[in-house]
Amino acid sequence: MRKGKHTWIYENKPVIISGFGIAGPKEGKGPLAEYFDEIIKDDTFGEKTYEKAECRMQFTAIKKAIDQSHLSIDEIDAMFAGDLLNQIVSSAFSARELEIPYIGLYNACSTFAEALLLGSQLISSGVLNNAVCSTSSHYSTAERQYRYPLELGTQMTPTAQWTVTGSGCSVLSKTGEGPKIEGVTIGRVVDYDITDTNNMGAAMAPAVAYTLEDHLQETGRAPDYYDMILTGDLGIFGSEMMNKMLISDGYDITANHYDCGKMVFDEKQKVKMGGSGAGCSSLVFNTYVLKKLRDGSIKRLLFMPTGALMSKDSSLQGESIPAIAHAISIEG
Amino acid sequence: MRKGKHTWIYENKPVIISGFGIAGPKEGKGPLAEYFDEIIKDDTFGEKTYEKAECRMQFTAIKKAIDQSHLSIDEIDAMFAGDLLNQIVSSAFSARELEIPYIGLYNACSTFAEALLLGSQLISSGVLNNAVCSTSSHYSTAERQYRYPLELGTQMTPTAQWTVTGSGCSVLSKTGEGPKIEGVTIGRVVDYDITDTNNMGAAMAPAVAYTLEDHLQETGRAPDYYDMILTGDLGIFGSEMMNKMLISDGYDITANHYDCGKMVFDEKQKVKMGGSGAGCSSLVFNTYVLKKLRDGSIKRLLFMPTGALMSKDSSLQGESIPAIAHAISIEG
Repeated sequence: MRKGKHTWIYENKPVIISGFGIAGPKEGKGPLAEYFDEIIKDDTFGEKTYEKAECRMQFTAIKKAIDQSHLSIDEIDAMFAGDLLNQIVSSAFSARELEIPYIGLYNACSTFAEALLLGSQLISSGVLNNAVCSTSSHYSTAERQYRYPLELGTQMTPTAQWTVTGSGCSVLSKTGEGPKIEGVTIGRVVDYDITDTNNMGAAMAPAVAYTLEDHLQETGRAPDYYDMILTGDLGIFGSEMMNKMLISDGYDITANHYDCGKMVFDEKQKVKMGGSGAGCSSLVFNTYVLKKLRDGSIKRLLFMPTGALMSKDSSLQGESIPAIAHAISIEG
Repeated sequence: MRKGKHTWIYENKPVIISGFGIAGPKEGKGPLAEYFDEIIKDDTFGEKTYEKAECRMQFTAIKKAIDQSHLSIDEIDAMFAGDLLNQIVSSAFSARELEIPYIGLYNACSTFAEALLLGSQLISSGVLNNAVCSTSSHYSTAERQYRYPLELGTQMTPTAQWTVTGSGCSVLSKTGEGPKIEGVTIGRVVDYDITDTNNMGAAMAPAVAYTLEDHLQETGRAPDYYDMILTGDLGIFGSEMMNKMLISDGYDITANHYDCGKMVFDEKQKVKMGGSGAGCSSLVFNTYVLKKLRDGSIKRLLFMPTGALMSKDSSLQGESIPAIAHAISIEG
């Protein structure tokens, strides 16, 4: 049911029948380690390159999420997937192994929300029965693609974030047991003229504020309707900025706001503002959050992965960083 | 209505209420020039970089397609867009100017099919009322991103294709006048172990064969059901390969097969196997093909943009080229 320009609340609520999250070695030493379904010991995952390792991580997350769903691969109608590598090759090469009809997505670190959004809209409206939604990222692939060669040992700037090595996949179905997607709000692109690619939290904060305000206004809900409002990878500084913006607009979510980027690492792990990456929110969601939704400790979740949509070239050409956030409402 | 694992035939057929195609100078000297809505005289389009020029082309195509639809930007529920640039920045930066809820897509040169596929499924099922679908490419951005610096003056190999400078956008609506999307078949990723990135036609040919055979089998249609089966950018060699594969499988579409990559340039324009790029199929579709659908000279079209899903890095790491094709059935 349409609830305004950007928001849909579903009559038929798609079910998250399974989820699987696989984490890198550093993430496996973080505060959420006990919740991860699999932790790899070596961040090459036995492959010759980090890119192939990332692809194998995403493939593994999808394959094991499908196994846990007790569906056969043949029953999956579509795969909604994306990642941060140029031409989203981790997703494309995973799709090659799986032979599931493939929809490649890119909304940077909000891609996992984009996947849940499209998958749930198409299941809720009866087009699809079952879909997989997955994303991945890898510290070493992102670092050398977006920033500098790893061998250079470049120092992180104070507002930088550490790309999560990890992948998460959810299987959505029109029937079954599990948390349900209750509605979605589609984000638009917001640009507050931030040009520092080492401060993506600041670039993304306004996008969350816009989408959250759209969502609350269009549904008529107050922030405390949700037990948890979970952003993707704003990190410490981005979360602060977002909260300041929201408070100045009359919304205070500080009591129930959490951020996957802040949760996935401990401060002692020297990650500056926290974790980031397309795999950050999908890993945290499909492990820690999914378990909390299942055991009833989270009853109503607003999940808002956030994405910074620049490229290395656009930044070198002097462009600012456009950002986006989608919101997914989930019931435990 | 579901017609098998990969195919949907719609009861409510979304209408293509407008389309706009903008072409580069070389394309504007080709055989379809008279059909293009706009031809730019200078491939920088007045911008400082080719990347900004490509972005301005896509923005222009979207803006003018919306103008022609007589809808306001506010009435557009979602923008489905993608391009070949890393992190699909042409689409993201266009979305920034338009403030339409944004779904970023990447299926390489089949991205325009992906956009029509998602847009039509979501309109047909009642989720959206109006959507824009757009893609772009630019010879000079693609060349320097995927191959060599332009200044090097590298020769094309015999099986290479020339990336089209152009962009096309369709506005889909649940009501209105115009050709209708009758159904879709979602493609899966197919890899026949082609490793030559200057022979993408060969890499993509099997993907078309797989999707076309799925489509024909699941709908019970013969190839001559369609006046035109229009592939995206197989080019001369890829088209030949596809036809050989289909004939050996018992399907002969040589009488009604056309390819946007072959149509967009003349042989005298020295483009080897023809045009390619995410803008190739969207430009040809939104100009020449849309006019032919409107005047009744094409009554039934199967539109199959094709994509090669490798990245520069995946090729340098020795990977073969996975490919995909989606099929969109359109009634004039």
